[in-house]
Amino acid sequence: MKMNIAVLPGDGIGPEIVAQALNVTEAICKKFGHELTYKQALVGACAIDECGNPYPDETHELCMQSDAVLFGAIGSPKYDNNPSAKIRPEQGLLSMRKKLGLYANIRPVTTFESLIHKSPLRTDIVKGTDLMCIRELTGGIYFGRPQGRSEDNNTAYDTCVYTREEIERIVHLAYKYAMQRRKKLTVVDKANVLCTSRLWREVAQKIEKQYPEVTTEYMFVDNAAMQLIQWPGRFDVVVTENMFGDILTDEASVITGSLGMLPSASVGIYTSVFEPIHGSYPQAAGKNIANPIATILSAALMFEYAFNLPNEGKLIRKAVDASIEAGIVTEDLAKDGKTYSTSEVGEWITNYVNN
Amino acid sequence: MKMNIAVLPGDGIGPEIVAQALNVTEAICKKFGHELTYKQALVGACAIDECGNPYPDETHELCMQSDAVLFGAIGSPKYDNNPSAKIRPEQGLLSMRKKLGLYANIRPVTTFESLIHKSPLRTDIVKGTDLMCIRELTGGIYFGRPQGRSEDNNTAYDTCVYTREEIERIVHLAYKYAMQRRKKLTVVDKANVLCTSRLWREVAQKIEKQYPEVTTEYMFVDNAAMQLIQWPGRFDVVVTENMFGDILTDEASVITGSLGMLPSASVGIYTSVFEPIHGSYPQAAGKNIANPIATILSAALMFEYAFNLPNEGKLIRKAVDASIEAGIVTEDLAKDGKTYSTSEVGEWITNYVNN
Ligand SMILES: CC(C)[C@H](C(=O)O)[C@@H](O)C(=O)O
Ligand SMILES: CC(C)[C@H](C(=O)O)[C@@H](O)C(=O)O
Repeated sequence: MKMNIAVLPGDGIGPEIVAQALNVTEAICKKFGHELTYKQALVGACAIDECGNPYPDETHELCMQSDAVLFGAIGSPKYDNNPSAKIRPEQGLLSMRKKLGLYANIRPVTTFESLIHKSPLRTDIVKGTDLMCIRELTGGIYFGRPQGRSEDNNTAYDTCVYTREEIERIVHLAYKYAMQRRKKLTVVDKANVLCTSRLWREVAQKIEKQYPEVTTEYMFVDNAAMQLIQWPGRFDVVVTENMFGDILTDEASVITGSLGMLPSASVGIYTSVFEPIHGSYPQAAGKNIANPIATILSAALMFEYAFNLPNEGKLIRKAVDASIEAGIVTEDLAKDGKTYSTSEVGEWITNYVNN
Repeated sequence: MKMNIAVLPGDGIGPEIVAQALNVTEAICKKFGHELTYKQALVGACAIDECGNPYPDETHELCMQSDAVLFGAIGSPKYDNNPSAKIRPEQGLLSMRKKLGLYANIRPVTTFESLIHKSPLRTDIVKGTDLMCIRELTGGIYFGRPQGRSEDNNTAYDTCVYTREEIERIVHLAYKYAMQRRKKLTVVDKANVLCTSRLWREVAQKIEKQYPEVTTEYMFVDNAAMQLIQWPGRFDVVVTENMFGDILTDEASVITGSLGMLPSASVGIYTSVFEPIHGSYPQAAGKNIANPIATILSAALMFEYAFNLPNEGKLIRKAVDASIEAGIVTEDLAKDGKTYSTSEVGEWITNYVNN
């Protein structure tokens, strides 16, 4: 197969971890006989520094022409304590999502048996957790207008907006994944308070009838925030709107104690973006210590979701499991023993794929 | 002191747990020589059943004339799967908050050494957690207008609104509590996306200068959702807007594993309301099995916050600690041994106060 991807390393540790994921991707392509072409482009703080725009037009053009985008992370301490700065790296991320129509962010949260001691949760609570969060990514309060200040500068406002089509699209996607998994869907909203949530629930209740094999439950967001900690194993697929998804997916991502291991896919109208859940971790940038596995597993999702090549994805997962088994891990995962650098872990996994 | 309180038992287990808290309150008043008068009134589903209004005018009048309100819980399964019902118990709660000007919901989250095995978190993570969540309760997306549907019924919208005054009021309150505690304040927002959050941060950054003894940090809500699980002990006082507060306070309330133990206070312009964090638990209603301690500790907060009587509050806490120590607990807290009924636990604590 011909595979044409865009590579957006971004800021902080982005370049280091993406380099390893790219090596693994190339090894897989060689092994399975795919023809890989890729181009790199700027996004985030480094793009602001270079050309004053966190999501430059050239980067957007490149993404539009690509079958998939491999993404690192964005963000820089330069901008963090100045939320009112005119130009910010996050704006690049948000306009990328909007312009590429990346309406669904998909985050599988799984436990790694051998890393379970890293979880802040008790082993008996977290054991066997295997859920998938699906977050709506281009609607809601992130993009709703009007947003601004009153003329006297005394009042600020944001608007949360959803159309039926936006909700239908993502609820269908959630059912599609539920059908491939344990056939359980939790729709998270705040229908006892919000009008947008009532529309979510109304739309979901209609679509529910088309998937009689799936057990659907509706849960208020505050309750979901509790149950994710008390009993994460009860969830299979969770679907929710943008803002709730931001909070709940981050909460879900730490329960297994393996934030450095969790990939994500943002499925879009024009292309799809694959990136680790964790951030740009600026303190570690350039030190060759960051865990590359979340990005490498994002490449696995890319083979599976963007190219429908499950065996390629499976081999990456197998290589990652083997590296953990063999104790070839970065310092965040170390129990007592020796720890390895970003590139050592990446090379070990690449070699595993090659052999 | 003369104390005039309103008692609103509400739905589900509300009447049973409030009865015990009231007994303890009466015992304390007798012991310390306070003159207690109280009246009961309806709120929630039982008020809808009785007079078609979840927050009847008589109930509101009573609250307005009272120094403090002791509240149980509201909600009934009758309404739960019908979020679009015209009249709902939750509306009663929201209009009570708005009409009484209950702008700050205060939730202390503490760990009970002897109940730490009930926490879903590892003991080494949760040990020593002692934080206070302060949630803005009468603004934001809960009350912002416009809220509704487009004419073609295809789009729904909610509005999040905050004024400087609303933010100033609660941020000052948060600093006041921080000054009485470990002098650390975390302001939680989403200033990298929301205009209202940027106003929150701007206002807080101004007020910060007036409290040089307090260490202030600003944290995005998604990060806060993670850190509450990964490292709850790092927090002292946390202040945030209404919707984020709904999610984060519920998340925080389960980390210690003692949801049945946690009280809350809603501080207002006209009066204050004291209630357990947990809900109306309809499955247990009338069975005399619910844990009354969260409500009894809410009465302790009432003495402390509404009447400025710390010793009275302290004695209630001492009595509660003694009951746990003695193993006089409801089934939710039982380790192996015998469990006690709601009224048995309440009577034990009342007797302790009397002696
Ligand atoms: C950086 C920020 C705008 C972004 C979001 O809120 O969506 C991030 O938290 C995420 O989850 O990808
Ligand atoms: C019942 C509901 C309206 C309410 C809220 O969202 O405020 C509840 O969840 C709470 O936290 O008191």
